[in-house]
Amino acid sequence: MHRIVVLNGPNLNLLGTREPGIYGALSLSDIERRLRERAASRADLAFHQSNHEGDLVGWIQEAGLAGAGVILNAGAYTHTSVALRDAISGSGAAVIEVHLSNVHAREDFRHRSLIAPVARGVIAGFGAMSYDLALEALLEGDRA
Amino acid sequence: MHRIVVLNGPNLNLLGTREPGIYGALSLSDIERRLRERAASRADLAFHQSNHEGDLVGWIQEAGLAGAGVILNAGAYTHTSVALRDAISGSGAAVIEVHLSNVHAREDFRHRSLIAPVARGVIAGFGAMSYDLALEALLEGDRA
Amino acid sequence: MHRIVVLNGPNLNLLGTREPGIYGALSLSDIERRLRERAASRADLAFHQSNHEGDLVGWIQEAGLAGAGVILNAGAYTHTSVALRDAISGSGAAVIEVHLSNVHAREDFRHRSLIAPVARGVIAGFGAMSYDLALEALLEGDRA
Amino acid sequence: MHRIVVLNGPNLNLLGTREPGIYGALSLSDIERRLRERAASRADLAFHQSNHEGDLVGWIQEAGLAGAGVILNAGAYTHTSVALRDAISGSGAAVIEVHLSNVHAREDFRHRSLIAPVARGVIAGFGAMSYDLALEALLEGDRA
Amino acid sequence: MHRIVVLNGPNLNLLGTREPGIYGALSLSDIERRLRERAASRADLAFHQSNHEGDLVGWIQEAGLAGAGVILNAGAYTHTSVALRDAISGSGAAVIEVHLSNVHAREDFRHRSLIAPVARGVIAGFGAMSYDLALEALLEGDRA
Amino acid sequence: MHRIVVLNGPNLNLLGTREPGIYGALSLSDIERRLRERAASRADLAFHQSNHEGDLVGWIQEAGLAGAGVILNAGAYTHTSVALRDAISGSGAAVIEVHLSNVHAREDFRHRSLIAPVARGVIAGFGAMSYDLALEALLEGDRA
Amino acid sequence: MHRIVVLNGPNLNLLGTREPGIYGALSLSDIERRLRERAASRADLAFHQSNHEGDLVGWIQEAGLAGAGVILNAGAYTHTSVALRDAISGSGAAVIEVHLSNVHAREDFRHRSLIAPVARGVIAGFGAMSYDLALEALLEGDRA
Amino acid sequence: MHRIVVLNGPNLNLLGTREPGIYGALSLSDIERRLRERAASRADLAFHQSNHEGDLVGWIQEAGLAGAGVILNAGAYTHTSVALRDAISGSGAAVIEVHLSNVHAREDFRHRSLIAPVARGVIAGFGAMSYDLALEALLEGDRA
Amino acid sequence: MHRIVVLNGPNLNLLGTREPGIYGALSLSDIERRLRERAASRADLAFHQSNHEGDLVGWIQEAGLAGAGVILNAGAYTHTSVALRDAISGSGAAVIEVHLSNVHAREDFRHRSLIAPVARGVIAGFGAMSYDLALEALLEGDRA
Amino acid sequence: MHRIVVLNGPNLNLLGTREPGIYGALSLSDIERRLRERAASRADLAFHQSNHEGDLVGWIQEAGLAGAGVILNAGAYTHTSVALRDAISGSGAAVIEVHLSNVHAREDFRHRSLIAPVARGVIAGFGAMSYDLALEALLEGDRA
Amino acid sequence: MHRIVVLNGPNLNLLGTREPGIYGALSLSDIERRLRERAASRADLAFHQSNHEGDLVGWIQEAGLAGAGVILNAGAYTHTSVALRDAISGSGAAVIEVHLSNVHAREDFRHRSLIAPVARGVIAGFGAMSYDLALEALLEGDRA
Amino acid sequence: MHRIVVLNGPNLNLLGTREPGIYGALSLSDIERRLRERAASRADLAFHQSNHEGDLVGWIQEAGLAGAGVILNAGAYTHTSVALRDAISGSGAAVIEVHLSNVHAREDFRHRSLIAPVARGVIAGFGAMSYDLALEALLEGDRA
Repeated sequence: MHRIVVLNGPNLNLLGTREPGIYGALSLSDIERRLRERAASRADLAFHQSNHEGDLVGWIQEAGLAGAGVILNAGAYTHTSVALRDAISGSGAAVIEVHLSNVHAREDFRHRSLIAPVARGVIAGFGAMSYDLALEALLEGDRA
Repeated sequence: MHRIVVLNGPNLNLLGTREPGIYGALSLSDIERRLRERAASRADLAFHQSNHEGDLVGWIQEAGLAGAGVILNAGAYTHTSVALRDAISGSGAAVIEVHLSNVHAREDFRHRSLIAPVARGVIAGFGAMSYDLALEALLEGDRA
Repeated sequence: MHRIVVLNGPNLNLLGTREPGIYGALSLSDIERRLRERAASRADLAFHQSNHEGDLVGWIQEAGLAGAGVILNAGAYTHTSVALRDAISGSGAAVIEVHLSNVHAREDFRHRSLIAPVARGVIAGFGAMSYDLALEALLEGDRA
Repeated sequence: MHRIVVLNGPNLNLLGTREPGIYGALSLSDIERRLRERAASRADLAFHQSNHEGDLVGWIQEAGLAGAGVILNAGAYTHTSVALRDAISGSGAAVIEVHLSNVHAREDFRHRSLIAPVARGVIAGFGAMSYDLALEALLEGDRA
Repeated sequence: MHRIVVLNGPNLNLLGTREPGIYGALSLSDIERRLRERAASRADLAFHQSNHEGDLVGWIQEAGLAGAGVILNAGAYTHTSVALRDAISGSGAAVIEVHLSNVHAREDFRHRSLIAPVARGVIAGFGAMSYDLALEALLEGDRA
Repeated sequence: MHRIVVLNGPNLNLLGTREPGIYGALSLSDIERRLRERAASRADLAFHQSNHEGDLVGWIQEAGLAGAGVILNAGAYTHTSVALRDAISGSGAAVIEVHLSNVHAREDFRHRSLIAPVARGVIAGFGAMSYDLALEALLEGDRA
Repeated sequence: MHRIVVLNGPNLNLLGTREPGIYGALSLSDIERRLRERAASRADLAFHQSNHEGDLVGWIQEAGLAGAGVILNAGAYTHTSVALRDAISGSGAAVIEVHLSNVHAREDFRHRSLIAPVARGVIAGFGAMSYDLALEALLEGDRA
Repeated sequence: MHRIVVLNGPNLNLLGTREPGIYGALSLSDIERRLRERAASRADLAFHQSNHEGDLVGWIQEAGLAGAGVILNAGAYTHTSVALRDAISGSGAAVIEVHLSNVHAREDFRHRSLIAPVARGVIAGFGAMSYDLALEALLEGDRA
Repeated sequence: MHRIVVLNGPNLNLLGTREPGIYGALSLSDIERRLRERAASRADLAFHQSNHEGDLVGWIQEAGLAGAGVILNAGAYTHTSVALRDAISGSGAAVIEVHLSNVHAREDFRHRSLIAPVARGVIAGFGAMSYDLALEALLEGDRA
Repeated sequence: MHRIVVLNGPNLNLLGTREPGIYGALSLSDIERRLRERAASRADLAFHQSNHEGDLVGWIQEAGLAGAGVILNAGAYTHTSVALRDAISGSGAAVIEVHLSNVHAREDFRHRSLIAPVARGVIAGFGAMSYDLALEALLEGDRA
Repeated sequence: MHRIVVLNGPNLNLLGTREPGIYGALSLSDIERRLRERAASRADLAFHQSNHEGDLVGWIQEAGLAGAGVILNAGAYTHTSVALRDAISGSGAAVIEVHLSNVHAREDFRHRSLIAPVARGVIAGFGAMSYDLALEALLEGDRA
Repeated sequence: MHRIVVLNGPNLNLLGTREPGIYGALSLSDIERRLRERAASRADLAFHQSNHEGDLVGWIQEAGLAGAGVILNAGAYTHTSVALRDAISGSGAAVIEVHLSNVHAREDFRHRSLIAPVARGVIAGFGAMSYDLALEALLEGDRA
């Protein structure tokens, strides 16, 4: 069975309480529940959130060394963290970068991702469904 | 039944013959076949390719005015065409931008998409599966 | 009698159906009709639209070689096409660049025109009246 | 009857004496006379010139608050004055930016207008006729 | 008793008549009255406004040479005037830069202040209260 | 009674021990004591410092969700943290950005604040008094 | 016998009629005739011109897949077309980029070639002789 | 006898009172006296100072139209005024740009002169002697 | 005896497990052991690693206040952390910046160090020996 | 008989010993021999190499003043030397710029040539054949 | 008696033979003769020219260490040589930078001088008289 | 025994006479003596200095071809010389780049090294000890 780690960066714990126009009405635990249902018996899912860059670095390292797939919504750190990038390439983690909103339709500084060049792929703009699609990509990717 | 138009830009007719390390071993008709199987009875699929920017502009306009969803792999025009962008916003087309390769891991000029800011979402880096995920996004998106 | 060619670039065929807040409620044939009425016996008017950069290049060349004046709304190609610029300087066409909207009040990439440096003049922001003013400029310009 | 204020910025008092290749042979009073003839009974025309940025700011404010239309050739201040821009948006003045020469065919620093984003429209490159076209635009604009 | 000069740049004479969403509903004389009440017997207050950069330069010089404190809302000249900057450093004026609006939340060209590097401090975004806080800073600053 | 949270970022725990020429001679607890005296019965004050970006993100979220006002001296994170910015806009916190020194008179990289565009206002350059002024702004702001 | 395809981009059909100071007095068919004489029995020459980017993309693909050498004067598309670049690398075409004029002595935007990085070599500035030299390079290149 | 106009821009009236380390200990009237002594019977000297850009524009125009030589220390306007530049080229004034200090050894924004490209020459860094050298250049220049 | 603190930033805990081509085959504890042997009785060595920027800030502060020398391999934070820079200058820490790899031979974003301007010196590209050289520099530096 | 000078810049004396993947296997004297054979009786050939910018400047000056054609492979100085550029335009030398490798396919800093704007033409990417083509261009150029 | 060294950089040996429109009709020895006449008994003059950056570095060092004044026309090296800059600041040479032409009216790359920030002053645009003025500045400078 | 060549670029012959605050009080021969003592029987040391870029190019080539290690303090050429870079990569020289001062704490143009990307490593900021550390690195490097 696949091992998949879903990592959420800073401020994603606010989901559902504020700015639903941008991020949707679901809370982070709604997303977790949805995703666990979809994964069901197909994958062993871990789900984390932190506002600390260092925590995300650590979780990516663990996932990479353990051979787990990673669904990473790094939030604001997407645009500023070389440390996350190095964690991905340094641990060999198979990371899919996801975003709830279409970051390209927002402020300029959100158009640059420091993570994308070392990710397997990027999925952005589909709300909670971005996570679903990433899950399918990880699960189907191994069959392709 | 959903109407979905899959549009492919310049040089995608070369798929399967060259640079499989970047674009995979499938030809464009392989991708079309795969996608038709997946869509099956869920969607009415049209599939086009052209090396002409103007053809893509026209197809996007038609899809937008007809209310069809669009899966758009604009290839090189992703990075240079304001006309495609205007076709999307001008016709109100619901476009999902897809790429076979992870464009963010390639040359700098491929990191900028003129289309993304007016697309619903972006999916890149999953080879032929990028199209599959986009199809699911269009089909599921209406239920969500 | 003056020979004047009115050229319209990509997506201008959508006029009147979408984004009236930006482009006004008139369709392209409304604009053509208005302009023919104003020109009446003062000018021999040709009127074209294409989504293909190459078509516009060809029409400019013909107009330039024939000594006709050109009213050019190049749409998106205004900002990306060196080929249109070369067609103007290469054929010696007397071109007036027009825009329906005030391009300087929109996205940054619309502030740069590759065509303007080789045009006779620029008129932007007056809706369909931009074409009227350009017509007057071409007709009066010869008397001045 | 329309109230229209024609404002001319620094060095436009030199018109007709120098650099006719760029600016034409007419003096500023020639342009004023021409414009008054054309306006005739259609508009109540005021006509000013100053080398002082502050004077132009004041005249724009007055015109804006009085509901008059403004034809503004801000000369060099076009490219450097945020104060003029703020005068326009702050007073709600309906301003048409005009230039005698095609500024886009000249030095790079003349390609950027700080005023254009808050103007109704821009007319450049037609010599004294630029003012005529702006007058027509203001007069016809209200009928459209 | 402290001598304090309050200087207001271009278009601040429009306050209260336009764009209250950005600048508030108070007129400049409302602000003056408010400030005089607060200063009361604590400071000898002078209050000026001009649309002319040169006037502001002169007033800063006078204040600097006289040892008066300066509350300076330079408006648009904040972003374009090296002359104001030189007046401050050349006359040794103790200047507090104030803005009614939060300039950092507005257009990019308002993010750069040529004056700030030679000011004592900056207060922005509190409407008329920006002036009040600056007054307190000047008065308390001497006690600290 | 107002609830106000005062947040201090990295290295502000060093205050009073080093670089008094830039930051003044007061320690952070001196500033806290001063501020508590001034607030007295007017506000319920919380006071925190951390070198961890994630801690600051968390405190801003809490303050925003609780409707407390925030005085934020983010120190170095002012210039590098998108996460703090998102915490402010995501939690709706009413934040006043403060700095002890005049950041505009220092290195170029300190001139850009990622936080300022989503703050209510900015106060910089008044040493410990910057906090005092921010406190007054929060308290008076509600009455204005 | 070598198969060589000579491709000419937008506005090269104007050669000989305009701007001889830049491009020389020969027409495109003069160049074709000259080149056929020189090639004689050494190469099987095809010769095309189009104003359409998509046509050039198609011809490059065909040449590349057929193993023919390509002499490419892409004109204005040299500076704007990622699609031509991808056609070259995607089809493996052996392309020599040629220009009649010395593009480096002209406007800045002509100094950047999007094609050059994937071409075998570049020859510019020799008028019609640029084509001759490219022909020799293709013919001799195989012997070297 | 030569007619020479010496023009001094903003804040030069402060000379001698402040920042002698940068600008020297002489006042502007000291410089004027020095220069009149040196000119003696060789030139008819006029000497002006203003903090208003518009005044300088006017004086340059007059000098240019009258055929007088101009020694111009435009101070801060050197770096921001397109209007001064246009006054020089528009009136054909023979201008020598002077600076007391070596502007290239100061802040970056003082390295760019908008005036220098249309001046006859530039002399900077010699204190009051910069004016003397400019005077000699104007007087000797006619003999050379 | 010297007190020396060796600080290692994010992902350096991965050393020896991944990307040996870039970082060498030694683990971080191998480096620590090597360094302790070399230091022997000459220095009192502390050795830390963290993925958290805030931890590094704290350790630098402690070392600086205690007068200990610091060997700092800040990893990814080298390129993004103003907080580390401020910790160094704020605590007066004598820091030698080290890197295992030659950062200048890698991606562009690794060429800029925010720390280097406040470090004593920089040593990069020697693998584990970079630490050895830094140790010698700290020990010998005091004798020189 | 034509006089032609072949000039080779820094490090071209290394040819044949190192980096054959980039520069080919021929030594500089191989290239000289090849070129002399080809020139035979058609041209009087001089051939020089130096690592000193000043030597190249001198040789270009001599060639230019003597009316000889120049084949110039300036190596690294292509990208950094204004002095070579001035030698060409100052002496009127007819220079053809050549490169062994396709400089446009290498590092960014090799894409800019300071020499090309004053050269007759540029030939790059054909190995030793670049020199041959340049020779033909100089010899045939006079006949055309 | 003053010791003054006049140094001339690359291509200045061409003076008088080429491009008189830019550099004037005098040869370098004409300039030397003129200057020696003017210096007469007031200064001990040495006069050098070289195309080698290293020679100029050496002469500046010697002059600086000997306490001689330097008139430096570094030609093209003005814009590219950090070594000349370091020679000036390293040897403490009192250097006046001169140019025959007004470098600010020429190509962009000639607007930046690497030398000016460490020179005493700059004189440009007066032809051979630039040297004369520099001589006077050095001689009079000591009296002032 | 190791063969090591120590190369010193422009102005390093001035060491010890000027700017000891930046470069230390030792002369270049002091450094040479120190280094020879340290090397003693461990290495065969050659030591050169030149102000000529071409000399340094030649010495690097020789060292590279001879398999000697190089300690290179290229001084100003570090920041401007592509020729040195090519000499290193072209000859395969094992180069350690050294600087006496911490170049990152000085002017911006000293932050960019054209040499570093092809060097083995970089050591900067330790005064004469920078050479010592480089020597150890070369000697120990072979054992590691």
